[in-house]
Amino acid sequence: MEPSESQQDRSEALNSGCVVGADIGGTNLRLALSDRNGTVMAKWSTSTADTRNPDVVVGLVCEGVEAMLRRTSVPRSSLRAIAAGVPGVTDVDQGVVIATSYLMGWRDVPLRKLLEAALGVPASIDNDVNIAAIGESWAGAAQGVRDFVFLAIGTGIGAGIVLNGQIFRGRGWTAGEIGYMLVPGTPEEPVERGKPGALEGIVGGEGIQSQWRSHWSEANTLLTKSATATQIFDHALEHNQLAHHLLEKASRTLAYAIYNMSLILNCPLFVLGGGVGMHPALCNATSNILAQRSARVQPRLVRSALGSGAQLTGAIRLALDTIVTDSANID
Amino acid sequence: MEPSESQQDRSEALNSGCVVGADIGGTNLRLALSDRNGTVMAKWSTSTADTRNPDVVVGLVCEGVEAMLRRTSVPRSSLRAIAAGVPGVTDVDQGVVIATSYLMGWRDVPLRKLLEAALGVPASIDNDVNIAAIGESWAGAAQGVRDFVFLAIGTGIGAGIVLNGQIFRGRGWTAGEIGYMLVPGTPEEPVERGKPGALEGIVGGEGIQSQWRSHWSEANTLLTKSATATQIFDHALEHNQLAHHLLEKASRTLAYAIYNMSLILNCPLFVLGGGVGMHPALCNATSNILAQRSARVQPRLVRSALGSGAQLTGAIRLALDTIVTDSANID
Repeated sequence: MEPSESQQDRSEALNSGCVVGADIGGTNLRLALSDRNGTVMAKWSTSTADTRNPDVVVGLVCEGVEAMLRRTSVPRSSLRAIAAGVPGVTDVDQGVVIATSYLMGWRDVPLRKLLEAALGVPASIDNDVNIAAIGESWAGAAQGVRDFVFLAIGTGIGAGIVLNGQIFRGRGWTAGEIGYMLVPGTPEEPVERGKPGALEGIVGGEGIQSQWRSHWSEANTLLTKSATATQIFDHALEHNQLAHHLLEKASRTLAYAIYNMSLILNCPLFVLGGGVGMHPALCNATSNILAQRSARVQPRLVRSALGSGAQLTGAIRLALDTIVTDSANID
Repeated sequence: MEPSESQQDRSEALNSGCVVGADIGGTNLRLALSDRNGTVMAKWSTSTADTRNPDVVVGLVCEGVEAMLRRTSVPRSSLRAIAAGVPGVTDVDQGVVIATSYLMGWRDVPLRKLLEAALGVPASIDNDVNIAAIGESWAGAAQGVRDFVFLAIGTGIGAGIVLNGQIFRGRGWTAGEIGYMLVPGTPEEPVERGKPGALEGIVGGEGIQSQWRSHWSEANTLLTKSATATQIFDHALEHNQLAHHLLEKASRTLAYAIYNMSLILNCPLFVLGGGVGMHPALCNATSNILAQRSARVQPRLVRSALGSGAQLTGAIRLALDTIVTDSANID
């Protein structure tokens, strides 16, 4: 989805420089080339399904950057900065990915240095849920809101917490790792770190699919045993009993988790994102359950405005903020 | 408990001025007069059991301030500031108590203005749990710790959240109102605001006493039916079955609440305060349950170092910070 551009636009981009935002995921690597105004000039993506090695991932990023520059005829020298979101605990100060989820398995990867060495421009990195929150804050459902929580609900669950207009990351960079939260209905047995958490087992995509498979029977549904969480939610709206039960359970559990966060943080807005979190049925049912609880400040629940693009948009914003002051003089 | 003072100490206090810290509770009003170094020169207290009217409470504060000044022979003109903690939601910017607990029932009381008008010095007010957190941070169990949570567990439960060395109060001044938190084992039915919350029913003093009364039988214990929560915890250590069950339930539920806060805030330290929270058996049992859960940053759990004096100490610190810059020139 590249906007058509006039020759003039392109020369402006050449003059003031451009940035790259990267969304590094366990399944896909997605890149966007943006001008200094945040207008996307090109996108590029590739699979990372069999690619776990950080050097190989950085190599793919370089390949994508070169391809986007070529495609837009922007010279290499116009690139000012890059920012990347990664699915894991990230030390933003040191630019190190401390640990990624069980799918990727990175440990203490100095990703910022690797990107800077490979591309020769300043780089920033952050946890992908935090990056998505930056995106929603800049150009999505949380524009102008100083305090909100972005909830990424996909395979698992994570929260990007924005307090006073700033990402709140916690002392050990793990603030918002709510997949392990305990609410009524979640199992109490301690879960090994790296395994899906108590909340994820009920609200996360993998957990919903697993429950569906356990209780599935050919006689009761036309939907396959291997259905995805969003297919199951669609099916719930068609009044299938098991699907409806799983949606109700996920919504109730999510409402409790949001209620707890709201008590602790007193945040007025929660933004639901991620493949599962974007499903309207989940947002509606969760809102209804939340509304039954009195609270001094009843939190508002909305769906992400950027959808699957939240991370990439946030990465562009972070890349723009990463441009060093020297090169900013070009403006 | 007034430290003996030399004549020299007193003249220094006269020169640089003094402040008053106030702890306004539903049962007692406690005041302390302190010099500019934070050394307490006098204390005063009275009952507020039958006193709900804010003007009457402010009148009692004035009475206590005059009594302490008289007792220490400090002239009225040396008083520089006052700060007061109140058991309720407090708008710190406006100096207004928005609402206190069901015991006091204040609504939108401009307490800062009332205190300033009555005493003729600058005043500050804050929620009493936040004030206690300030106390622990200044002179208690959290000295030098930039991020921690102070948990006040008495009749009810509240949390004072310190992030980056600052009290975090939330958009509507209710951050840390965790008495309503939902964890495995708490009832799921919505509770009317103002009534004890789900967590308080199991971990709060009133909740523990109420459960004790419900299951009490003369045959099984020497402890009276009207025992307090701390007596019940003492009795648990003497291997009484019901008391042990209530301690175990309170500890497990508290551990879950702390675990949830730790996931969200990634705070390395939790300080337990309040009459119930200070009981060593609760702290030990809760720590043991927490230790069974793996976490990237295992939070440390300690008992308050200031005990019932945390609020008053915090109020003195806040009063010292309230002294206006003009009078600070006296130093």
